Amino acid sequence: MKIGILTSGGDCPGLNAVIRGAVLKGVISHDTEFVGFRWGWKGVVEGDFTSITRHDVRGLSKQGGTILGSSRTNPFEGEHGGPENIQRMLDENGIEAIIAIGGEGTLAAAQRLTDAGLRIIGVPKTIDNDLAATDYSFGFETAVEIATEAIDRLRTTAESHNRCMVLEVMGRHVGWIALHSGMAGGAHAILIPEQPMGIEEICHYVDSVRERGRAPLIVVAEGFKLDTMEEAHSHLGLDAFNRPRLGGIAEKLAPMIEERTGIESRHTVLGHIQRGGAPSAYDRVLATRLGMHAVDAAYDGAWGSMVTLRGTDIETVSIAEAVGSLNRVPQHRYDEAKILFG
Amino acid sequence: MKIGILTSGGDCPGLNAVIRGAVLKGVISHDTEFVGFRWGWKGVVEGDFTSITRHDVRGLSKQGGTILGSSRTNPFEGEHGGPENIQRMLDENGIEAIIAIGGEGTLAAAQRLTDAGLRIIGVPKTIDNDLAATDYSFGFETAVEIATEAIDRLRTTAESHNRCMVLEVMGRHVGWIALHSGMAGGAHAILIPEQPMGIEEICHYVDSVRERGRAPLIVVAEGFKLDTMEEAHSHLGLDAFNRPRLGGIAEKLAPMIEERTGIESRHTVLGHIQRGGAPSAYDRVLATRLGMHAVDAAYDGAWGSMVTLRGTDIETVSIAEAVGSLNRVPQHRYDEAKILFG
Amino acid sequence: MKIGILTSGGDCPGLNAVIRGAVLKGVISHDTEFVGFRWGWKGVVEGDFTSITRHDVRGLSKQGGTILGSSRTNPFEGEHGGPENIQRMLDENGIEAIIAIGGEGTLAAAQRLTDAGLRIIGVPKTIDNDLAATDYSFGFETAVEIATEAIDRLRTTAESHNRCMVLEVMGRHVGWIALHSGMAGGAHAILIPEQPMGIEEICHYVDSVRERGRAPLIVVAEGFKLDTMEEAHSHLGLDAFNRPRLGGIAEKLAPMIEERTGIESRHTVLGHIQRGGAPSAYDRVLATRLGMHAVDAAYDGAWGSMVTLRGTDIETVSIAEAVGSLNRVPQHRYDEAKILFG
Amino acid sequence: MKIGILTSGGDCPGLNAVIRGAVLKGVISHDTEFVGFRWGWKGVVEGDFTSITRHDVRGLSKQGGTILGSSRTNPFEGEHGGPENIQRMLDENGIEAIIAIGGEGTLAAAQRLTDAGLRIIGVPKTIDNDLAATDYSFGFETAVEIATEAIDRLRTTAESHNRCMVLEVMGRHVGWIALHSGMAGGAHAILIPEQPMGIEEICHYVDSVRERGRAPLIVVAEGFKLDTMEEAHSHLGLDAFNRPRLGGIAEKLAPMIEERTGIESRHTVLGHIQRGGAPSAYDRVLATRLGMHAVDAAYDGAWGSMVTLRGTDIETVSIAEAVGSLNRVPQHRYDEAKILFG
Repeated sequence: MKIGILTSGGDCPGLNAVIRGAVLKGVISHDTEFVGFRWGWKGVVEGDFTSITRHDVRGLSKQGGTILGSSRTNPFEGEHGGPENIQRMLDENGIEAIIAIGGEGTLAAAQRLTDAGLRIIGVPKTIDNDLAATDYSFGFETAVEIATEAIDRLRTTAESHNRCMVLEVMGRHVGWIALHSGMAGGAHAILIPEQPMGIEEICHYVDSVRERGRAPLIVVAEGFKLDTMEEAHSHLGLDAFNRPRLGGIAEKLAPMIEERTGIESRHTVLGHIQRGGAPSAYDRVLATRLGMHAVDAAYDGAWGSMVTLRGTDIETVSIAEAVGSLNRVPQHRYDEAKILFG
Repeated sequence: MKIGILTSGGDCPGLNAVIRGAVLKGVISHDTEFVGFRWGWKGVVEGDFTSITRHDVRGLSKQGGTILGSSRTNPFEGEHGGPENIQRMLDENGIEAIIAIGGEGTLAAAQRLTDAGLRIIGVPKTIDNDLAATDYSFGFETAVEIATEAIDRLRTTAESHNRCMVLEVMGRHVGWIALHSGMAGGAHAILIPEQPMGIEEICHYVDSVRERGRAPLIVVAEGFKLDTMEEAHSHLGLDAFNRPRLGGIAEKLAPMIEERTGIESRHTVLGHIQRGGAPSAYDRVLATRLGMHAVDAAYDGAWGSMVTLRGTDIETVSIAEAVGSLNRVPQHRYDEAKILFG
Repeated sequence: MKIGILTSGGDCPGLNAVIRGAVLKGVISHDTEFVGFRWGWKGVVEGDFTSITRHDVRGLSKQGGTILGSSRTNPFEGEHGGPENIQRMLDENGIEAIIAIGGEGTLAAAQRLTDAGLRIIGVPKTIDNDLAATDYSFGFETAVEIATEAIDRLRTTAESHNRCMVLEVMGRHVGWIALHSGMAGGAHAILIPEQPMGIEEICHYVDSVRERGRAPLIVVAEGFKLDTMEEAHSHLGLDAFNRPRLGGIAEKLAPMIEERTGIESRHTVLGHIQRGGAPSAYDRVLATRLGMHAVDAAYDGAWGSMVTLRGTDIETVSIAEAVGSLNRVPQHRYDEAKILFG
Repeated sequence: MKIGILTSGGDCPGLNAVIRGAVLKGVISHDTEFVGFRWGWKGVVEGDFTSITRHDVRGLSKQGGTILGSSRTNPFEGEHGGPENIQRMLDENGIEAIIAIGGEGTLAAAQRLTDAGLRIIGVPKTIDNDLAATDYSFGFETAVEIATEAIDRLRTTAESHNRCMVLEVMGRHVGWIALHSGMAGGAHAILIPEQPMGIEEICHYVDSVRERGRAPLIVVAEGFKLDTMEEAHSHLGLDAFNRPRLGGIAEKLAPMIEERTGIESRHTVLGHIQRGGAPSAYDRVLATRLGMHAVDAAYDGAWGSMVTLRGTDIETVSIAEAVGSLNRVPQHRYDEAKILFG
């Protein structure tokens, strides 16, 4: 079989390890031929691809980023987009199947393309760990390690200056990175999208830490929203019109905490550092296994399915079922973490 | 309730995080009073313990080792050992329950003591990940990360000198650390206790790597045994009598490989470095949660049970069922890894 | 002798190692008694100090921050400030000398107090490495390592998305952290306060990298100024009045680069992460040696002097000479780095 | 000019950064053409080389090992060795000069070849930091960081089990790695080749640490010799004849300490892990600068000289003067470290 691979959406530690796992498994077990589409669906739509041999994936599991490049191109858009054009391009080049590594958007597109007759296997990629169909997604654990190391560093500088530190980590819709790094690093409050909270409660934790003679450290997911966000904005004297850039949530919270509690407060935004660099061993193993099993799924003809982690096993589920079910931090996990607050 | 905690057996990254999780959960949710027994069961037998407050566990999740110390004392031995003596000591000091953090030996002892009427909750500790009752045990992932980093380092020196490198990692009865670090680091052969292999097959992988112009890297678990171990010994001209110390398996393999393949070969033994130091974020979260749930199990009166990880949940299982079931690397996981060999 | 130690100004990896080095050297070689002033000069002015024993500095060399706390209090200000009040407090408590660990402000104050008769030894602390009197100051190398690791991470995410990345590091008046981390990480342009540059030249480097098919990565010191900064502001349509917060230089540069070159550009600000956490081995050794030699200088009665690194030796120089001479990146070092640009 | 580069002897973090620095400097400033000899002097003797372009050194500063390979071939030996054969090969291929990156042996050979008329510039490579002509050599600081991290890890496991740990690090003739890592990690004794010590004194430190309730940690350079080494051997009941392999010094010391003090003792040998992997930022900067200045020295026609670090400057010295002067740890540096013993 000749299989095309693509990586789509925001990059994530472990993408290259998936590619390597798939290629080694295919080449060695099935004598598969591989091509890689450049820049995600863009390469599919434009017929832009290149051969990937065993030699090309040498040493790749520890390398961050993706050798194929990524973009947010939608395969249904543009002159050459859509299932018919894509199928024609695949046929012309003898490509029999696609392994699509990407997030919710990519998987949903893969599902629609499969419905239209294309042969696609999905590999879920979400650094936020926001897909319910898999216990963990690769890249997530690496992001948690990076965020935890940042907390370890911020803690000593906070204590030395008796300051409150607010660290913003990734997590647009779900708070897993904040939850795990906050628990690992011993944060005094963890603020996540699933659990809006008022500034008064946040300041309550800050004050309580202060009273025990310690420097408060707060981890906040980028998607966290204050209970009273609008009020907060108006409080800062900013109207909707005159806001060239408000910055992230940490940038907003730090001055609010300082104003209410009188504690000098600083914020740090981890940003892109969470996405790049060598994946942790955990993510390398997970990503390699997902890549291998995606090839098996292709040889099983399980089109429209994706590979996932369940316990310690890699399983296959229907993309149709998997997509759309957000992996929210459940209440009991937040309650568990909350024991450590304040 | 007044609960005593102990840590027993070889140390493991995350022990302190378990202690911290238990103490914070107990103090905050149940107003529990905690004492820590010094040096494992030795402290129980000798009535040597000290109070642990919330203040004592501050910043503890990232600290390697165990603040309580550890030993291999058997609670059934010695003048003051055995269930009756221990129960008397507990009664005299108002200690109502024990949380015992330890490996198979500790858990088996905990089971026997529970059968004799003591109130004990177990927390499984095995850096080798050799207990079937839990998906993963804390400390394991940290050891894998350390071993993987060592592989990453050895790889460049191997390539520069065109040498074969043999890295020995922990794993007395099961090969999980070797399997995961070998997959993550891209080892060319992974040798584990579950899968004895002959020196000829090992050299076959070495030769095949060499032919592709690369420097072979082999990861071997300390408990791996050559198919033809005795033959190997005699081959080196050593008899059973005249062997002051033969060293570990890596030390044995390197010269055997060099002799057969003609490739200059070197060995490295990671040893105690795998045990110490700050736990990874993954292990801090797992250990914290296990500690918290052990306290819940105590308040549930689930004596004789231990806490485990299943998927993403912490569950409770009977120690009696859990002990004795070795978590061997299954054939399909080894076959999966074997794709990457050679 | 009874010596008081203080740490002043922004914290810096290695402060605790200086304290440990001083205390161990004093206690073991001279039977010195030590006290630590709390929160820098604040503790001196308020007579707020505590005893430091050998036991207190155990394991301290690897710990970030400062166990004494820090602040920006000026010892000449306030009701109890000034040389006479301070001398009285020292006399009343039998404190015969002060070891003051701090930056330019602290050292200048130490000089003035010495002129007024106090017995003070200085230890230079500047994470920016901006004091000409010492080859390197502790904390600097750690900050460079952290910044370099961030560059390594940003590089892979930049390449995956074909983006330009702008990383802002510390360096208010001098660009050493940017220079060293940029050289180590292979940045395509390094922007430092000593070398203002126009946006056109920056974009020239960006374009040239792009043409070679790579993703541009720029390191900028926080104190860098565009040749045409004012023009830049007006260009963004912001007037001086209506600027609630403009953010740092990286935040400004990224959109300017994107607008001129058409390359999607992102910025990251490392911020407080550079200050905290365990010092590198290099900084632990340097800081320990500086602490030891500060005690020697006190026993030599070298009041008004400070300890510095020259080549591989720790030497003593007069604070009066040392202060005021900024350690700028010299032209030949910048030219050297510039070879790597574009 | 067309310049050939070679790397010789044991590998060392930073070799690739030297190559990259030289190539970028040459290509950009002088339009130099570069070739790389394979496997050190072997490639010179056999005329085995390959072109190195700017593209080939992309991303190389962070990569451990050497892309050129290394060996211990002596350029004066073999059928095609010696200055005349080498000069003929260079002439036939239009190679006008050699940049030789290597240790004492390589530099001495470079000197002899220069005396015979060849045009060679040396770059000193010694992970042990044993050349007096340079303040520090690249790779050394990385090895110190790795050894220090190992000490940090061993410390917690030592404390948990109340054991003595003996860590063996590199340092055949000089003890710099042991000295710096021991100071940084807070070792209780540092044993180096320059300072033989008897087992009684070592055990004195061990006992004194034990009495303060701590777990002793000893760092020993591989080249350390006991004052009474022969006696020690006979003590273990081993005669000179019947010693198939005695192992390193740490393996010898641990049982001797255990026997004399009664403290359970374990040893760890860091070995090849110190040589491999990504260089620290410090070493990347130093190596890059050395590579750049080696090219400048070639264009200055400074044949027979080598580049060195003096303070913060890269300078040029005659190899003839530099070679043969061992950079021993001076007495005052050992006395300084000794303050921290026990």
